[in-house]
Amino acid sequence: MADTDVLVIGGGIGGLGNAYALASGGHRVRVLERSPAFTEVGAGLQLAPNATRVLREWGLLDEVLDAGVQPRRLVLKDAVDGTELTSLEFDKGFTARYGAPYVVIHRTDLLDILHRACLRAGVDLRAGHEVRDLTVDDRGVRADGEHEADAALAADGLWSSLRSRLTDDTPICSGYVAYRGALPVSEVTGVDADALTDVVVHFGPGCHLVQYPLRRGEMLNTVAVFASPGYQRGDADWGGPEELDAAFAGTCPAVQRGLAWLWRDRRWPMYDRLPTDTWVDGRLALTGDAAHPMLQYLAQGACQALEDAHCLAGEAAKRQHAEPADWPEILAAFARSRSARTARVQSTARIWGELWHCDGLTRSLRNALLTGRALDDYQYVDWLYLD
Amino acid sequence: MADTDVLVIGGGIGGLGNAYALASGGHRVRVLERSPAFTEVGAGLQLAPNATRVLREWGLLDEVLDAGVQPRRLVLKDAVDGTELTSLEFDKGFTARYGAPYVVIHRTDLLDILHRACLRAGVDLRAGHEVRDLTVDDRGVRADGEHEADAALAADGLWSSLRSRLTDDTPICSGYVAYRGALPVSEVTGVDADALTDVVVHFGPGCHLVQYPLRRGEMLNTVAVFASPGYQRGDADWGGPEELDAAFAGTCPAVQRGLAWLWRDRRWPMYDRLPTDTWVDGRLALTGDAAHPMLQYLAQGACQALEDAHCLAGEAAKRQHAEPADWPEILAAFARSRSARTARVQSTARIWGELWHCDGLTRSLRNALLTGRALDDYQYVDWLYLD
Repeated sequence: MADTDVLVIGGGIGGLGNAYALASGGHRVRVLERSPAFTEVGAGLQLAPNATRVLREWGLLDEVLDAGVQPRRLVLKDAVDGTELTSLEFDKGFTARYGAPYVVIHRTDLLDILHRACLRAGVDLRAGHEVRDLTVDDRGVRADGEHEADAALAADGLWSSLRSRLTDDTPICSGYVAYRGALPVSEVTGVDADALTDVVVHFGPGCHLVQYPLRRGEMLNTVAVFASPGYQRGDADWGGPEELDAAFAGTCPAVQRGLAWLWRDRRWPMYDRLPTDTWVDGRLALTGDAAHPMLQYLAQGACQALEDAHCLAGEAAKRQHAEPADWPEILAAFARSRSARTARVQSTARIWGELWHCDGLTRSLRNALLTGRALDDYQYVDWLYLD
Repeated sequence: MADTDVLVIGGGIGGLGNAYALASGGHRVRVLERSPAFTEVGAGLQLAPNATRVLREWGLLDEVLDAGVQPRRLVLKDAVDGTELTSLEFDKGFTARYGAPYVVIHRTDLLDILHRACLRAGVDLRAGHEVRDLTVDDRGVRADGEHEADAALAADGLWSSLRSRLTDDTPICSGYVAYRGALPVSEVTGVDADALTDVVVHFGPGCHLVQYPLRRGEMLNTVAVFASPGYQRGDADWGGPEELDAAFAGTCPAVQRGLAWLWRDRRWPMYDRLPTDTWVDGRLALTGDAAHPMLQYLAQGACQALEDAHCLAGEAAKRQHAEPADWPEILAAFARSRSARTARVQSTARIWGELWHCDGLTRSLRNALLTGRALDDYQYVDWLYLD
């Protein structure tokens, strides 16, 4: 018998979330992460109530709240003229409706919290281990000849190499690229006050800027995203900083100022894949971005990975009477339960991207529609936050 | 001294409207129309309150109401799925707000009413006379060496030859073509009941269909408009009936049925021009489509021509103490008074065309915006109907 029930390949937010949830349910879990440490380059991320409900059930919400910020609201503005179009108030009514708060947090901080939680739960965490060979058969899984388990989870992200065992698609480039920056507030001057308390999104033709506070308000997080003309031309090297400035040339001063707080030495081209429900091959299942990579316009990448982890642990718990555990059935039930919802999130994220980046008549219609929205109209998020 | 004060070149709705208004104000008017009779090929047209107010002031509204129909409402529907998006109720509130009713009428009937009114007012009506030469100088105007007057109005329509004396533009083809049909209701089967009482507009991607009753409900008027792929390809002959059927292939059954009631042996390619305020050269002024041809999406072509006529006669009346009448100043005042408004109508008509014919995300936004509109929200028409 193997000394491990579940092998998790990938130690990002999804991998550690799964490991923690399964370990808390009494399963023996080992995580193999190819990086030398459980850390990640990145900046802020958003945790909507569908994710913070999971974190609270896991007993981790207080740590998340301590490390992050509860913004007052999500504000949507037009990047060209700077007008506020609408907002989603994160007030008591919001928290009551969705049963949990909206939180923004540094990606590193969330990863640290999950890492510590895994350690407390007895997860076997192994960094610096890249899986080169995974055998999956009727009896179990084996990674690189040494790590044996009853089941494996591929939590290896957008560029998942394990996904190619199930489907032959490749990531689809949106032609958009993101620049990020997370700086101490003390290093930032001239930022609009609301960006220090709210999630502020400015959307413009072919570009947008997102800003929000991190670490109890001590940091400002900025993300700028734009359609690369170099990508459209077919350039090998596209999306460079010179394109960044040009893409935002027509935006209002508040947006232009925001560009100063971006790291210019790295960038993230934005990819997704089309939805698939081919997530499971016997004792191997895809999870998180490996299963359903999405564009970031709904800010749901991490949230859906946490929902995955919660769901899978729940399917395992429902079947805990079986001895030995029927992992193929647990994994199949997980995929059945999750694939329609994540497909909708993937598809809707694409549409929201169009909505954010439109121009001309479409922009006029979008602005009219958002400006006319009642502040307590939740139709655009109920489906996502209520689950 | 000439026996005529004002020579009107063109005997369409705008020309006869001007002739009648000026003659009612005591001016001696002669109309030169190149066709052998004061008639016109066409089907229905819409008269919004900004036009019916003018007709009432002229004492012609009762005749118009007798010949036409007061529809119950304007209904906007999606041509693809057939859903009703919103409506503008032509109820007592509407009539009270705008001071006059909404009327649809056969083009021929309106022209007849204006023609009879001109005869009663003593207008000198001359059909079968195409103006080949117009002399305009400080002292007066002279057409073809025989028709002398103090001033001339070019009411010669979209393709105005007189306009070329003032500006060197040419009509701009939209690439859309209209098919029309006006049939006795007895010849029509299977039409939706609302098309016999309402103005029903179905808009779809690259196409739309408009239907409404005429002649006290005895006739059904149908207009189908679509973007011609042949025009896009640069074909010499474009917009034929085979394109008509293809353009509407994706529409709902109610729209498909409507295509049966179109004349297929003639069609109207749709043109406009960019706004200009160069309408006047001394004693010559452009009016109606010659001054501000527009796409038909606001159904304002005839309405704006009638507004022009009302305005010009008003400017003349304000200056009736001057002897002799200062026509250059009257015409200049008319152009000053009218050019900004008609420019807005021209520009907005183009945008409404985009709005009617959009697809994808833009269509979704449009439908959401219209579906959410309160039935007593008049923001989209106040600017146009209140004047």
